Amino acid sequence: MSINQLPQTMKAAVMHNTREIQIEEYPVPQIGPDEVLIKVMAVGICGSDLHYYSHGRIGKYVVDKPFILGHECSGDIAAIGSNVQRFQVGDRVAVEPGVTCGRCDACKEGRYNLCPDVEFLATPPFDGAFVQYIKIREDFVFSIPDHLTYEEAALVEPFSVGIHAAARTGLQPGSTIAIMGMGPVGLMAVAAAKAYGAATIIVTDLEPLRLEAAKQMGASHVINIREQDPLEEIKTITNGKGVDVAWETAGNPNALQSALGSLRRGGKLAIVGLPAQDEIPLNVPFIADNEVDIYGIFRYANTYPKGINFLSSGIVDANKLITDKFTLEQTQEAMERALNQKSECLKIIVYPNGLL
Amino acid sequence: MSINQLPQTMKAAVMHNTREIQIEEYPVPQIGPDEVLIKVMAVGICGSDLHYYSHGRIGKYVVDKPFILGHECSGDIAAIGSNVQRFQVGDRVAVEPGVTCGRCDACKEGRYNLCPDVEFLATPPFDGAFVQYIKIREDFVFSIPDHLTYEEAALVEPFSVGIHAAARTGLQPGSTIAIMGMGPVGLMAVAAAKAYGAATIIVTDLEPLRLEAAKQMGASHVINIREQDPLEEIKTITNGKGVDVAWETAGNPNALQSALGSLRRGGKLAIVGLPAQDEIPLNVPFIADNEVDIYGIFRYANTYPKGINFLSSGIVDANKLITDKFTLEQTQEAMERALNQKSECLKIIVYPNGLL
Amino acid sequence: MSINQLPQTMKAAVMHNTREIQIEEYPVPQIGPDEVLIKVMAVGICGSDLHYYSHGRIGKYVVDKPFILGHECSGDIAAIGSNVQRFQVGDRVAVEPGVTCGRCDACKEGRYNLCPDVEFLATPPFDGAFVQYIKIREDFVFSIPDHLTYEEAALVEPFSVGIHAAARTGLQPGSTIAIMGMGPVGLMAVAAAKAYGAATIIVTDLEPLRLEAAKQMGASHVINIREQDPLEEIKTITNGKGVDVAWETAGNPNALQSALGSLRRGGKLAIVGLPAQDEIPLNVPFIADNEVDIYGIFRYANTYPKGINFLSSGIVDANKLITDKFTLEQTQEAMERALNQKSECLKIIVYPNGLL
Amino acid sequence: MSINQLPQTMKAAVMHNTREIQIEEYPVPQIGPDEVLIKVMAVGICGSDLHYYSHGRIGKYVVDKPFILGHECSGDIAAIGSNVQRFQVGDRVAVEPGVTCGRCDACKEGRYNLCPDVEFLATPPFDGAFVQYIKIREDFVFSIPDHLTYEEAALVEPFSVGIHAAARTGLQPGSTIAIMGMGPVGLMAVAAAKAYGAATIIVTDLEPLRLEAAKQMGASHVINIREQDPLEEIKTITNGKGVDVAWETAGNPNALQSALGSLRRGGKLAIVGLPAQDEIPLNVPFIADNEVDIYGIFRYANTYPKGINFLSSGIVDANKLITDKFTLEQTQEAMERALNQKSECLKIIVYPNGLL
Repeated sequence: MSINQLPQTMKAAVMHNTREIQIEEYPVPQIGPDEVLIKVMAVGICGSDLHYYSHGRIGKYVVDKPFILGHECSGDIAAIGSNVQRFQVGDRVAVEPGVTCGRCDACKEGRYNLCPDVEFLATPPFDGAFVQYIKIREDFVFSIPDHLTYEEAALVEPFSVGIHAAARTGLQPGSTIAIMGMGPVGLMAVAAAKAYGAATIIVTDLEPLRLEAAKQMGASHVINIREQDPLEEIKTITNGKGVDVAWETAGNPNALQSALGSLRRGGKLAIVGLPAQDEIPLNVPFIADNEVDIYGIFRYANTYPKGINFLSSGIVDANKLITDKFTLEQTQEAMERALNQKSECLKIIVYPNGLL
Repeated sequence: MSINQLPQTMKAAVMHNTREIQIEEYPVPQIGPDEVLIKVMAVGICGSDLHYYSHGRIGKYVVDKPFILGHECSGDIAAIGSNVQRFQVGDRVAVEPGVTCGRCDACKEGRYNLCPDVEFLATPPFDGAFVQYIKIREDFVFSIPDHLTYEEAALVEPFSVGIHAAARTGLQPGSTIAIMGMGPVGLMAVAAAKAYGAATIIVTDLEPLRLEAAKQMGASHVINIREQDPLEEIKTITNGKGVDVAWETAGNPNALQSALGSLRRGGKLAIVGLPAQDEIPLNVPFIADNEVDIYGIFRYANTYPKGINFLSSGIVDANKLITDKFTLEQTQEAMERALNQKSECLKIIVYPNGLL
Repeated sequence: MSINQLPQTMKAAVMHNTREIQIEEYPVPQIGPDEVLIKVMAVGICGSDLHYYSHGRIGKYVVDKPFILGHECSGDIAAIGSNVQRFQVGDRVAVEPGVTCGRCDACKEGRYNLCPDVEFLATPPFDGAFVQYIKIREDFVFSIPDHLTYEEAALVEPFSVGIHAAARTGLQPGSTIAIMGMGPVGLMAVAAAKAYGAATIIVTDLEPLRLEAAKQMGASHVINIREQDPLEEIKTITNGKGVDVAWETAGNPNALQSALGSLRRGGKLAIVGLPAQDEIPLNVPFIADNEVDIYGIFRYANTYPKGINFLSSGIVDANKLITDKFTLEQTQEAMERALNQKSECLKIIVYPNGLL
Repeated sequence: MSINQLPQTMKAAVMHNTREIQIEEYPVPQIGPDEVLIKVMAVGICGSDLHYYSHGRIGKYVVDKPFILGHECSGDIAAIGSNVQRFQVGDRVAVEPGVTCGRCDACKEGRYNLCPDVEFLATPPFDGAFVQYIKIREDFVFSIPDHLTYEEAALVEPFSVGIHAAARTGLQPGSTIAIMGMGPVGLMAVAAAKAYGAATIIVTDLEPLRLEAAKQMGASHVINIREQDPLEEIKTITNGKGVDVAWETAGNPNALQSALGSLRRGGKLAIVGLPAQDEIPLNVPFIADNEVDIYGIFRYANTYPKGINFLSSGIVDANKLITDKFTLEQTQEAMERALNQKSECLKIIVYPNGLL
């Protein structure tokens, strides 16, 4: 490890129970030869963080010990392991939060997001990034240009989901796409659709704030489902043909049915959002008669260089999604706001080493 | 048209009402310059024929006039149009039953099965093949080798569905596959999986006769769902991993859920069978978490040369699926038997120009 | 056919010998039920036109009768056949110049550009568009929006070659690409690379006028091969890595070797330009060691709606490529200028119904 | 490491100069926690071994120290590292000879054969398998069933090249393929084409022994290029159409030109063999006019489970390719025979722990 003035301990926002986060003193992690230590500068709050915070689990992943949330993060290289050559102390970086084995079938076939041995930040039992320093294997760390903000670098994580959906559904320049649900993942998915050249980007939500933000991310048509029927609107916009591609990002059964129903013959659907219940009724004859393709989306693979590239080129200004900023000490306050004020918030950022 | 000793009229099995077929005298069709006239030698009875016969409609397609069923057919070239060069009178041929426009987006992109202007035998308002002669555009007619029987040539139609499913799901040699439902389409799908080199072919049904036939078509493992739990059996057979590919061919909601649940991470599902109801509950978190691909299957495209090739090479002996043979005059009897004796019948063939 | 005030005869620019074009009076074509008559408003001069004009042949295609050149064209619908529903007289349209059979294997598989029975404007024996009216099957005609010029609509033809190359080489947003040769096809290929989201577009040529035009089409780096070594420059630009994708559009052996050599491991090369000689030495161990993909490009398929879409969205202003305008009577003058003044001309347009 | 009765030293066949191999005593390798020690039971001699043996280098890879050749190998697990769970001492295994980093772009995208940090057996500076024990990371070792011989397991290596070519060229069941060059790689490529269901497999060579062996591997047509013109023969066999796919495996310029020329429109060519010279003249207009795809082939990725599966299922009997067997002490003799008696030898096996 390179020699560096590093503290021995650091502050961490530790979840001890549902809706109960305390600030504690933790040792700064020791890095291995292939790892880097990152001084965490910005962390976005994600829906999965909120779900662990309020329910204590997501499916089979259970928080059963004091636990640190947060996985959308960026920062500075604070120390490098003895084998590390791609980075120097002080480099500004985005962090891809899942470290995979590189040796299983999924990894070897290029679908490392399906690696059964992945260690993913803030997915039990692996602690996350609401903390001053984290360590991670260097190949999941990516330099960012000077003009990219730490907040944008943190947003490469939800952006990656959209990029992965674009790749899985073969989104082509000139396509028409419908994106259901304008939470942070949905909003960054709009940016991904724009980066992939979609000509018509139709989005749905029920919060005016989010629909307005969607326009800024590149939506060409917004549908407020409180006021309009999405299927009818999409039919009108596409001259009765239906969209080439649809993505459901909200985990909402109705939105999923709308996404499916909005497709043209031969259209492609990505299921990005995780619904609360398991069984969702889907129109199976519609799928068969129209030769629809449906693609499940689980995280992402090989998206970070692209995501940094797209945001750096100014395709969208993702900073506009940030509505709230909190210090690490305010993590619980930040989580509560995110839970309770959905009509006022888009993206909330926590700054473990002080507001920027 | 080439000169030929052709009759002026012919016998046709005409459906006048549900479960009511009469033999009538029809004029022999006049062919256009790009068409051929085919003396129909063998016609398989398909599930869709039975559905029209017993319900008078399938979805939006309604039998609202005297109507001729039957679309899995083969025969001899009886006359050729003035532009036809690929055929001579007397050639033995298989008939692909859907004539497409060749000019719409779907046709131009190679997905002609999605052509909105297709004219498909025995899909209202287009009459089918329970008749002594039919005409069809020459590019949907394919020569068969001497050693292929007319019955096998007719079976290229349901075989095509399996071949198309194999192409859509990217079935690779060495793969493991589960195929749900061993009706004629399912049985020919087993043959398709075998032709594509699947190493492990697991099938389900509840009729011993069909499971036995599946073994003859190439199934390596058969599961009688009356006696065994398909998900548990498939788990055991695949050492807990799940199958690479699954096809549902029966239109049964439980079978569809089993097909989905049987997949490994990154597995691919084809929906071949049309369920009677529209909304089927599917495990959406399973689809997303495991990045499953789901492909709707609607008929087929570009399969006939392959299908004839596979059957000609002896990959399976599809003649073994034929359990019953009827003359054209017995068409109603044939339909009734197919409807009522499912545990005794596999494929039933009608011979419009006499038993062979 | 709809009734319409149409002349009986029209002017045509007819090639009688190499470098000898005369203006003659031809009958206005009679259209069939599926055809439209087009009043030709703008025709671009293409390299293949020049080749027929100066050599009388391209490979096996020989001009052995009085012949009309020109295939990059646009105009107004002047009459419609009895079956035509998509157009009305007066519609402004772009013309895809190759009418395919829709029935052969290539057509049915979605690669209609490989149809052996294609009838392509200005490819012997089929006359081209240097004429006041042409007829063509309606499915190869595409409406254009009001704000697209006839010249841009004519340029959809060379643009299509770039779009097809982008599709064949799987060009992804964020990619790096090298495009060799900045003739009209190369310049429109730059526009295609931009439409597909290429992040770094490196181009080569030896004419300053063309390199300047390439910048306007979206090139990020231009290399004048008179002054710079393309391989070294590309290496520098890509930090020694090489480009993801390269296209050769000039038919120049050196340019082809540079295009190949510029690729990164796993890179993809499209061969767009036709060299004068058959055998070109290529570095085969480089292809194997680096697992390069090479794709031959022959015309295009399914590109017109995309091309019109891209140009309409303002992704580039293709009008900037037009350096010269001639009337139909000046066709020979236009051809001579295109042949002899390559350093001064980019795209030359002929206006069969008068300058616009 | 599990405790085991292992020797401290072992015999190794060490190349000290071109055409000079000595048997020496080496220490048995120490394994790391993720590695296994393999008692080498069979090693095939490959063309690259012969090239190093006779020339001392292949391209940039130079033998500049005492060096051990051999990379097609199989054996028994002799010891396992502390983290190894998939194997037990005594397991019979095939060895994939290239250990990749799992962390670079190529690895993460599923093309690990392009990993720049691969450590490949018998590619300088990494020693090979003509030795009694080797160590290797466990994820490149694969169990084989009891009925698969050690020789067959060693042959999974050249077989992998053919499997990779089949995947790269999208070889479909029912296809026609031409394979040029019936050395060991070519012969195993025939087996791969058969495993992928090719209906017509046409092969070329000039040695009767090899053409005879090709028939046993599954060739349907053999062409002795001493006596027949391959292009004409292939034209006849395919009724003038050309083959869907062609592979050149010999590194011979004429064979490569024949492979290219044998393709149908839209056909696909794999370049497997490495020619001695760099620049090979290829018919570029043919590539463009026919929209040929050309794929470079460099080793393979994700092929071992498939290869073992295919050979285990009895698709071919690869043991029939073995013409000569030598002990480790006879390695030089084995190499000389392989170099000098090409018309008598197919595959030569060296047995480091004694003849089987």
